[in-house]
Amino acid sequence: AQMALERDYETQREYDTRYRVLTEATRDAFLFVGAKSGRVVDANPVACELLGLGRNDLIGSSLVQEFEGRRRAEFMEALTRAATDDEARPLDLETRRTGQAVRLTAIAFRAAGERLVLCRLDPVATAVQTDDEMT
Amino acid sequence: AQMALERDYETQREYDTRYRVLTEATRDAFLFVGAKSGRVVDANPVACELLGLGRNDLIGSSLVQEFEGRRRAEFMEALTRAATDDEARPLDLETRRTGQAVRLTAIAFRAAGERLVLCRLDPVATAVQTDDEMT
Repeated sequence: AQMALERDYETQREYDTRYRVLTEATRDAFLFVGAKSGRVVDANPVACELLGLGRNDLIGSSLVQEFEGRRRAEFMEALTRAATDDEARPLDLETRRTGQAVRLTAIAFRAAGERLVLCRLDPVATAVQTDDEMT
Repeated sequence: AQMALERDYETQREYDTRYRVLTEATRDAFLFVGAKSGRVVDANPVACELLGLGRNDLIGSSLVQEFEGRRRAEFMEALTRAATDDEARPLDLETRRTGQAVRLTAIAFRAAGERLVLCRLDPVATAVQTDDEMT
């Protein structure tokens, strides 16, 4: 049993590394957030840049603080709805530090007994936006 | 030691799940390939659609087969160069089954003693491409 556990452990270590490489290679902005706490569990480099805050400062902080004019209770309710209801629309938000209009798409899931929400932040083009880097 | 291992195991399980959710939520096409074998270790839904092949058929198959007019030795050399040399250009390829021009960006890494390459496939807009879904 000990050996089987160690073998499994090796396999899981591989997913750990794959996860890290993937978060850094994707051009989408991603955050993992605790479903109950609303606190950031992890953020990739694109998300950090979009929110204008370093990863170490983001982790553990309350995600609602990063958006303009949102109250915690209302935000958490909207986030939960977006993450669990297939009919729900994505959330339209504005980043507080960088003033960027973004659309938040959420996916709820359970990992090792903890409920998490994966948030993808897509910048929304505004009328005055230049046409470079739209892809 | 057994308990510490089991606690670690739980943590790693979480990365396993996060990895899976992330591969499905990103809009980029990603493949993990064995650096030596050139065989697909994993592919996300966007990559499967871009290559026109199901995940189960892709996994274990040789990636070079999915592109037009490429020989294995030449492709593996170019892939290794793209993945390890910061100065190297991405590879411009054409998918065999869907006839789509793509640009392959590669990142080499080591996970659990195995050398892997993460490939991101970005569709390249051609002159006749319609303007929907460019984002």
